[in-house]
Amino acid sequence: MTDTHRTYWDEIDFAQMAAEHTIGDAFQVFARKSRDEIRAHQERLFARCVARAWQVPFYQRLWGEAGIARGDIRGLDDLPTLPVFDKSDIMASLERAPPFGDFAGFESHAQRPPVILHTTSGTTGKPQVLLFGAKSREVQALMLGRLYRWQGLRPDDVVHSVYGHGMINGGHYVREAVTHWTSAIFLSAGTGIETRSAQQVELMKTFGATVIVGFADYIKKLAEVAREQGLVPGVDIPVRMITGHMGREDQDAISEAWGGAVCFDWYGVGDTGIVAGEGPDRDGLYVMEDAQVLEVCDLDTHRPVAAGETGDMVVTCLYKDDLYPIIRFNTHDVTQVKTGRSALDVNFTRIEGFLGRSDNMVKIRGINIFPQGIGPMLDEHPAFAKEFICKARRDAQGRDSFIVVAEATAPADPALAKAFGEILKRKIGIEVEVELAAKGATASLTQIEVRQKPIRLIDERYG
Amino acid sequence: MTDTHRTYWDEIDFAQMAAEHTIGDAFQVFARKSRDEIRAHQERLFARCVARAWQVPFYQRLWGEAGIARGDIRGLDDLPTLPVFDKSDIMASLERAPPFGDFAGFESHAQRPPVILHTTSGTTGKPQVLLFGAKSREVQALMLGRLYRWQGLRPDDVVHSVYGHGMINGGHYVREAVTHWTSAIFLSAGTGIETRSAQQVELMKTFGATVIVGFADYIKKLAEVAREQGLVPGVDIPVRMITGHMGREDQDAISEAWGGAVCFDWYGVGDTGIVAGEGPDRDGLYVMEDAQVLEVCDLDTHRPVAAGETGDMVVTCLYKDDLYPIIRFNTHDVTQVKTGRSALDVNFTRIEGFLGRSDNMVKIRGINIFPQGIGPMLDEHPAFAKEFICKARRDAQGRDSFIVVAEATAPADPALAKAFGEILKRKIGIEVEVELAAKGATASLTQIEVRQKPIRLIDERYG
Repeated sequence: MTDTHRTYWDEIDFAQMAAEHTIGDAFQVFARKSRDEIRAHQERLFARCVARAWQVPFYQRLWGEAGIARGDIRGLDDLPTLPVFDKSDIMASLERAPPFGDFAGFESHAQRPPVILHTTSGTTGKPQVLLFGAKSREVQALMLGRLYRWQGLRPDDVVHSVYGHGMINGGHYVREAVTHWTSAIFLSAGTGIETRSAQQVELMKTFGATVIVGFADYIKKLAEVAREQGLVPGVDIPVRMITGHMGREDQDAISEAWGGAVCFDWYGVGDTGIVAGEGPDRDGLYVMEDAQVLEVCDLDTHRPVAAGETGDMVVTCLYKDDLYPIIRFNTHDVTQVKTGRSALDVNFTRIEGFLGRSDNMVKIRGINIFPQGIGPMLDEHPAFAKEFICKARRDAQGRDSFIVVAEATAPADPALAKAFGEILKRKIGIEVEVELAAKGATASLTQIEVRQKPIRLIDERYG
Repeated sequence: MTDTHRTYWDEIDFAQMAAEHTIGDAFQVFARKSRDEIRAHQERLFARCVARAWQVPFYQRLWGEAGIARGDIRGLDDLPTLPVFDKSDIMASLERAPPFGDFAGFESHAQRPPVILHTTSGTTGKPQVLLFGAKSREVQALMLGRLYRWQGLRPDDVVHSVYGHGMINGGHYVREAVTHWTSAIFLSAGTGIETRSAQQVELMKTFGATVIVGFADYIKKLAEVAREQGLVPGVDIPVRMITGHMGREDQDAISEAWGGAVCFDWYGVGDTGIVAGEGPDRDGLYVMEDAQVLEVCDLDTHRPVAAGETGDMVVTCLYKDDLYPIIRFNTHDVTQVKTGRSALDVNFTRIEGFLGRSDNMVKIRGINIFPQGIGPMLDEHPAFAKEFICKARRDAQGRDSFIVVAEATAPADPALAKAFGEILKRKIGIEVEVELAAKGATASLTQIEVRQKPIRLIDERYG
């Protein structure tokens, strides 16, 4: 009999976790601490992460190649001097040490510790591996659970989730957040592939869903499906709160579709967990600074830009000291810091939220266009049928054009195309072409029925 | 600030859980205790379950209608005198008190406690609700995790799971069991809908899957898909252990398909969690008697039958004292107790495993036929292509016939149909008709690509 190995639970000190990462009333106290107190907390956690990182071959290499030696990193002031890394470095680590890479430091343990594995779409078509230690897995759940509660999730809510499961992290992560840290009932419906849209609407009606969590586009679609079934969203399905990755214009459209439900934005990626989220004031996303350090960095120098300037979000996860540390992970998602004082007196840094991807940004005649932003722009016109896809083309003379294929209620009306074009010109700053399409006509290109994040750009310039 | 409600973690006493439900070496000690010691442990837990049940309207009604009063249930000796209930009673409870029924006793709490909700196919086409308290959720995970470890799952294994997610309990349950109680890496692939079969094979190859957990039919299919991709199951994908709901004949076929991997059977349903499982001796399924009481009962009287006789499995979950107690739940799954002494000196009762469903059983000319059993019977013939569906028909004279549509490598060979018919006659005891079909021809009827449990019977007698 030798079956005595450590389990997931042995890795977690619940009392210490609760002391370092607060929830509910205790969170509200922590978030109003002075910047000095917050910084002192961060320094303590950061030191542990650096110590862990030096045990991990990935960081030994990353930092070694940058000429950084043990002892050089004395605190958070040194953070901007460290190299950034991104998905492509993780993919290279996986190539170098298949199948789990060398970024989780299994080498430092006599026996591999309990680990949660998920995959996400990589940069090369191959799946990227996400690895979580038990403690950091539960802390990220705590942080999302507390955000939901801060935003107004109540113990008697019924939460409908459209985040996918299978190998994907999202659905499992959000399930852990809601079930472990709120008393709400959780409906793990998943994507439209796991549970068909009509069935999702039926579920929401049966159980009286009051909250939806998930991706903006699919949440919008569910309202349409409900209407097709003769139900009034917000009435027959009493949704009052919706939270997910969504900008202000997404929020307006979704709130309208769901009968005035209040919408909240938050931001995070698989490698980082939740980084920031809107509070009850819905006035910028508060960076969860008990657990995250966010630098908004110049795209080329990777040094922090001035507050109010846009740049790449570079994340350091202060809570990931158990397995795979995240120190200066470049998400390539763009934001800017929001200046001014929080009306809630919360002392966490605020950001504007996701403003586009620096590596998916399309530069057309000198102007940066983020294709995901086109839908929210057109939402102001009532004849826009909420779905669209963009195309970038280059002609024989090397001149780039940007075409928006927008679904419309009157797709044969040339005046409508003109009206859409004027909205876009006003908001983007340059002329783009508009082609109208019938309702549902872009679905095969955007793959909205089958993907969590629909495709919004077909770049035909480098074919 | 009033956001201080209890969380999932507050409901669990990890030390008590570990004392009452052992794992690893401690489990092996417990399982060899004397019957008296095991019974004393059971009585202590059973008393708590009865106390909880009396707080729950569902049991107040069920027992009240049977004339049972508080104080009447003094111990496990009284168990056979209590009424059984089944899915249809849960569905009636949901009808009576929508949407969550009155079997989880939310009424007994000032504020609804943390609860995990899943749905399963009900008896009426409407989904049946499964509700779990935090403590019983984690105990059921512990019990499945410890079975996997007892069967031979090692900390360095990579476990590929084909149990579905979404609203379904299975995938989430098994994920919790493996990630919380083993140190193995878990691949939550899910059904062929969540992750396409070709992609599943790719995943297994990439991560070097050594264990598969899931339903027999789909595991068999994955071996075929691997071969279609030019891979040798068991070699290019180093699977050495497979565990799931599967009888001996399933095991032989799956082991062969996967290059000799050792296969294990276990039994449990959504309402009960794991009830019994094969140990390393693969000689019957040990009932997990630290947490479950299993009665094998007469189909009509619901009283225990003699050891060795077949009957319905009626389950009492001793660990479910927190929310929704399970006391005499009739699964309508048939088994028989295995007599004789365990070669491992384990003192838990053993059963033969799932022998069919008493309510899906087809009675043809006085003989009970379990359609799921047909495939394993035909597996002995090398030309059987592993897939099949059964049909029951009634002619104008009221005479019933049973037709087996079996996929075969040579579907046009009348001698083969005759050979199959002879095997079935020998094993069932009566003549059945055999129709051969080409490989893949039954998929649209069995829905094996889209269902976790494929359809095996089309009953045309009551059309």
